[in-house]
Amino acid sequence: MNSPVRGRFITLEGGEGTGKSTLQRALQGQLAEQGIKTLLTREPGGSPRAEAVRALVLNPPGDTSFSPLAEALLMNAARSDHLDQLIRPALAAGQWVICDRFSDSTRVYQGVTGAVSPDVLLDMERHVVADTRPDLTLILDAPVTLALERRAARGGKLDVFEARGLAFHEAVRAAFADIARHEPGRCTLIDASLPPADVAHLAWAAIAARFADVLARP
Amino acid sequence: MNSPVRGRFITLEGGEGTGKSTLQRALQGQLAEQGIKTLLTREPGGSPRAEAVRALVLNPPGDTSFSPLAEALLMNAARSDHLDQLIRPALAAGQWVICDRFSDSTRVYQGVTGAVSPDVLLDMERHVVADTRPDLTLILDAPVTLALERRAARGGKLDVFEARGLAFHEAVRAAFADIARHEPGRCTLIDASLPPADVAHLAWAAIAARFADVLARP
Repeated sequence: MNSPVRGRFITLEGGEGTGKSTLQRALQGQLAEQGIKTLLTREPGGSPRAEAVRALVLNPPGDTSFSPLAEALLMNAARSDHLDQLIRPALAAGQWVICDRFSDSTRVYQGVTGAVSPDVLLDMERHVVADTRPDLTLILDAPVTLALERRAARGGKLDVFEARGLAFHEAVRAAFADIARHEPGRCTLIDASLPPADVAHLAWAAIAARFADVLARP
Repeated sequence: MNSPVRGRFITLEGGEGTGKSTLQRALQGQLAEQGIKTLLTREPGGSPRAEAVRALVLNPPGDTSFSPLAEALLMNAARSDHLDQLIRPALAAGQWVICDRFSDSTRVYQGVTGAVSPDVLLDMERHVVADTRPDLTLILDAPVTLALERRAARGGKLDVFEARGLAFHEAVRAAFADIARHEPGRCTLIDASLPPADVAHLAWAAIAARFADVLARP
């Protein structure tokens, strides 16, 4: 029996309220029309043990957060488990994986304040992600005020990252845009201030271009 | 006002049942006789957030453990918090710190199976421990069968490490002895098969020799 062709690994990145999970469901529908099975997952979390780490990072015991270095280590521990338990087996079985946040979020959220040096973060990423780098990363970019209004409209308790101030969210947006600029081979920046249908259209165009070898022409 | 002289950082290492916590209390008594205040702490854990990480690693959700790489990341996250919250402030305030397990345990428990390469572990240790390396590490060495008998006599539920087989515990013992051999400037190997009073006597001799500059002669 031949082993199936490895699936493709797509990550969605960007700040709070940029529409990552809405886009994730839209892309699943479009891939299904092409006969492609997808696994939708998210970080931090995705597997039971990684979800337990997520809960610890987002709502730590006591009245202060983990330091950015400790957060980066925890995020990478969760990622390692998620990769082993869910992402790598799915890709090996031929499924496509669309992950809401991945290693770029660690680079941005733990690196953006400058508290953890890029070298330390890239060391960890190299050890943990190893050869399971995303085939395509869609970076959703929108003005911070718009994105935070959307996040507020969704309701629910803000986690430790969501609760930070405007300057933090501006720095996050700039850091994601930087990644897109420095890794154009892997990343596509998408204007997430557009209506969801237009965002999905732009995202699909990026997917169709990147995976033209395996996707049928429309 | 002059800032106090930095305290000394002593770590106790070795397999299960080698008498680390008994020795820790004995050393606190002997240092107190010299007028030295000590902080007794342990890893994984020591601070509230690190204790939460400890609980997750030792009793993970689901029916299997984290991978050795994920464990190493979690242990280092806990260590980073413990250093920031407890160890560094105590040392800066002039207290001596005696820690039951520290970074050598991560090298041994996550590295011993060969699943995590020494390079990866030493990278993390360098980033997390930084300049808070132990001034002295006492490595308690005892035959595995003796140590496991002592551990069993203590009762209570075995955690994921304690529950592993004899070959694992033999490999742990050998790995600790290797560290002592390779870093004689920092480490002293102590025969932990002796009665507790004799172990404490040997440990105190090592401390008196290492810190002859600050300890009064007996």
